[in-house]
Amino acid sequence: MHGLIMDFQLNIPAMLRRAEQLHFDRELVSRRPDESIDRYTYGDMIPRAKRLAVALQKLGLKEGDRAATFCWNHSQHLEAYMAIPCAGGVLHTLNLRLHEKDLEYIASHAGDKIAIVDDVLWDLFDKFRAGSGIEHVIVVRSTDKPLPPGTIDYEELLADANEADFEYLDIDERAAATMCYTSGTTGKPKGVLATHRAVVLHSMASAMTDTLGLSERDTVMAVVPMFHANAWGMPFTCMLIGAKQVFPGPHLDPPHLLDLLASEKVTVTGGVPTIWLGMLQILDENAGKYDLSSLRAVVTGGSAAPLSMIEGFAERHGLLMLHSWGMTELCPVGTVGTVPHRLLDKPKKEQYAFQAKQGRPCPMVEIRARNENGIVPWDGQSMGELEVRGPWIASGYYNRPDAATSFTDDGWFRTGDIVAIDEFGCLHLQDRAKDVIKSGGEWISSVALENALMGHPAVAEAAVICAQHPKWAERPLAIVVLKKGKKASSEELIDFLRPQFAKWWLPDAVEFADAIPRTSAGKFLKTALRDKYGDYYTRQETAQA
Amino acid sequence: MHGLIMDFQLNIPAMLRRAEQLHFDRELVSRRPDESIDRYTYGDMIPRAKRLAVALQKLGLKEGDRAATFCWNHSQHLEAYMAIPCAGGVLHTLNLRLHEKDLEYIASHAGDKIAIVDDVLWDLFDKFRAGSGIEHVIVVRSTDKPLPPGTIDYEELLADANEADFEYLDIDERAAATMCYTSGTTGKPKGVLATHRAVVLHSMASAMTDTLGLSERDTVMAVVPMFHANAWGMPFTCMLIGAKQVFPGPHLDPPHLLDLLASEKVTVTGGVPTIWLGMLQILDENAGKYDLSSLRAVVTGGSAAPLSMIEGFAERHGLLMLHSWGMTELCPVGTVGTVPHRLLDKPKKEQYAFQAKQGRPCPMVEIRARNENGIVPWDGQSMGELEVRGPWIASGYYNRPDAATSFTDDGWFRTGDIVAIDEFGCLHLQDRAKDVIKSGGEWISSVALENALMGHPAVAEAAVICAQHPKWAERPLAIVVLKKGKKASSEELIDFLRPQFAKWWLPDAVEFADAIPRTSAGKFLKTALRDKYGDYYTRQETAQA
Repeated sequence: MHGLIMDFQLNIPAMLRRAEQLHFDRELVSRRPDESIDRYTYGDMIPRAKRLAVALQKLGLKEGDRAATFCWNHSQHLEAYMAIPCAGGVLHTLNLRLHEKDLEYIASHAGDKIAIVDDVLWDLFDKFRAGSGIEHVIVVRSTDKPLPPGTIDYEELLADANEADFEYLDIDERAAATMCYTSGTTGKPKGVLATHRAVVLHSMASAMTDTLGLSERDTVMAVVPMFHANAWGMPFTCMLIGAKQVFPGPHLDPPHLLDLLASEKVTVTGGVPTIWLGMLQILDENAGKYDLSSLRAVVTGGSAAPLSMIEGFAERHGLLMLHSWGMTELCPVGTVGTVPHRLLDKPKKEQYAFQAKQGRPCPMVEIRARNENGIVPWDGQSMGELEVRGPWIASGYYNRPDAATSFTDDGWFRTGDIVAIDEFGCLHLQDRAKDVIKSGGEWISSVALENALMGHPAVAEAAVICAQHPKWAERPLAIVVLKKGKKASSEELIDFLRPQFAKWWLPDAVEFADAIPRTSAGKFLKTALRDKYGDYYTRQETAQA
Repeated sequence: MHGLIMDFQLNIPAMLRRAEQLHFDRELVSRRPDESIDRYTYGDMIPRAKRLAVALQKLGLKEGDRAATFCWNHSQHLEAYMAIPCAGGVLHTLNLRLHEKDLEYIASHAGDKIAIVDDVLWDLFDKFRAGSGIEHVIVVRSTDKPLPPGTIDYEELLADANEADFEYLDIDERAAATMCYTSGTTGKPKGVLATHRAVVLHSMASAMTDTLGLSERDTVMAVVPMFHANAWGMPFTCMLIGAKQVFPGPHLDPPHLLDLLASEKVTVTGGVPTIWLGMLQILDENAGKYDLSSLRAVVTGGSAAPLSMIEGFAERHGLLMLHSWGMTELCPVGTVGTVPHRLLDKPKKEQYAFQAKQGRPCPMVEIRARNENGIVPWDGQSMGELEVRGPWIASGYYNRPDAATSFTDDGWFRTGDIVAIDEFGCLHLQDRAKDVIKSGGEWISSVALENALMGHPAVAEAAVICAQHPKWAERPLAIVVLKKGKKASSEELIDFLRPQFAKWWLPDAVEFADAIPRTSAGKFLKTALRDKYGDYYTRQETAQA
């Protein structure tokens, strides 16, 4: 028997209408390429988003058509976030850190019809434009550069459109709203096609107290780019609840970010651990320079954050790090490490140990992990590949029937992350499946080793990779970047790990490097390290032989 | 184009499974009829709820069948909240404060098949049992009374059921999960049939930071009965997030409630204003007796709370009142008065004035108000009947096609509440449509007058009703209960109102009474007052003539 409840569709137009009615007074602040700051309100933004929606429809955007963005984080990008789905289209955020060949593939595979492009990114865009099949290009101008031929000026397009022509569409909540390609290091990138319903539910969950707990009172700065997993959905969540937003534009170095955190009194920020590692160093070197007293949470995700960093922010700067795990396939937040009730009265050390894990699943997200023997117990030890299901998790990839292996027969998404889950359902990321080290048939977590190494006072960054080994098949090898002016020997670093791990987990060797290569999302690019060091132990063997 | 996201159903079994996996360690505390306290955990409760579900299915409960409860707030009632919808049935909470004739009508109109009844309520239940059509009666025993003949002992039923027979059903989110009849004072009670989806979305919204902001860290005591609008959905919300719950049982007097608030370190409680009025008096008379330092929010709803009470709790006891508006037709929360960012730096008086209104709509709930000229502007002044729509709002009543007039042609629910809405979307309850006073063609809010009267130091309670008037058609009449030992004249009270209202709003007379009659939900029963005083002015006219 069906209940008698309105068939109200969970869609982005309903979120926009809400913001228009309730949140018009809250600010939106953007840092421009020339470093200037401009600010306006939701009340200013929404009529512009409506005009953009009208203009896109006039350009021929039809229901379900993809419109791409190729932009930094700023207010016009937010306008596109709202206008494209509200015009019935699909917001496709292109990752400007990918190679032009990948971008050409992605834009043409997605079938992008329109693109909105930052003028400061024009040279990058121009490299794949011709092969992309994009019909209309709209340029957001922030410099004096002339408009590239055959393109449309963003402001002129808006000026020509009439807000009164905008209509709030009652879009089916199952319709596609956003598209985002995974920047997978293996195989062709795959497109995740999220529904309006997924965006709304993810936004509601992100504003739940035990998740990110975002509120109308917050000032949120997503350091994570809007072209990367929708800046963790923060632009949508903030619009739903009316939080002030700060957009750092192209200036993502720690001093610029710290300046904005302090001057705009940001309360919540989010980004990958490598950003926070750099910021922690600047904060340590400049005690008292930045007033971060408004900052209540630094959300970290994208890869596992080291305990030493979480402790460092807390002990030396009074800042709470909130550890999160997610993927593009999850819109993207899956788990958040809010400290639970049972640990509140416990010593700080225990709380930090909890915070160094990736937390518990968001409401309505379910998790389990599987190894070759089946579902692993929640004992905090047993490792397995994480599988998830829930109302904002991908059920497939756009036009990629070959990728069905990413899903189990009973409909769970196989994340490719190796995790342990404790008895309270707290996730502890061990590795990417392709990075885990199988030594003599047992699994070793490269992430646990590298995060422990980053707790050594001389270590700036550390990556641990799987190297082939003549006897054990695979053995861990550590690649370490030392802090400026600091020294540590290979033996000293291995000794530092000794009390924390079983003997057979310890890397057999440590190599020193000047830098660790990064992925487009700022994570360690382990494939590059494996290419360089993968034969480290066999090479030695050969040399010895 | 549809997105590619899992078709994950938002249902109560998914909430129960989550609590089983994540929240097993959190406590559930019940006050029993003999005043003793018992406590167990979600980890203890859930296997019992599973056994109850299995037992109900064995008794013949089929998909969509209604199973009633006739219980105070306690742990077995929570078990029924979970077991009935998870068994595929519909949880029908019977309001034990209704007249036996109404209860007989409701149970038979709903088609209740099974009932779970407190032994201490047996005499009440027995009065309408015969005419209700209920087939199986299960008795929750808390006294030594013998089991009534032809009934089943709750504990024996559970002891005979096997937890292993329980299966998590993947119930269609549009299926009916709960049923609750409005205790409408006019016409026959009407049944609201909420879906699984509505319960889940309402629970998510209730745990959003700007709504009730409920969290795993909270200890929640719903004073509002579980037989009244599902205790505002708190038992479901708390299960979703893992909050500790405290159930006051039948002991709803202020001293018992204050004792539990202090001893269990309750952080959030919720109930109707009349409960808080009584509690405030006890607190004022017993300064320092109760340690309520853990209490972060006192949620008030069901009718408009007076400003003087909100101020009294804040100024004299440091307690925050959170004003909410809802109805059974909304599962029930529609708006919440969390103080917005723009008022945080304002003087306390401004914040209290905001808190005395009913707040802004929950995410995805939409509001508007209409008078005879159409939709009224959001100017904080214009009054109209509130209309709402959203994903947890009723679209009709169970088997009551005649009640279609409660919905507009474009699908909004007509609440029967007269409100003004300010420019920020904050609702200000003026009256029930049937209580509003139309004096010479203009509307006067009885609620505004009575809440202002309750700010007078000598007034314990005040109700303002619409009395017939020979010249103005209708005029306000105030009925006042004075505090013990306090005195105030009719003229003095009208003078007290004078600075706050236009002259034509002032009641023409004040009548003094010993008590104001209450509805089953603890609100003022204005129909009884109108029966007694409705001809007050015409009677005087006649007497004068």
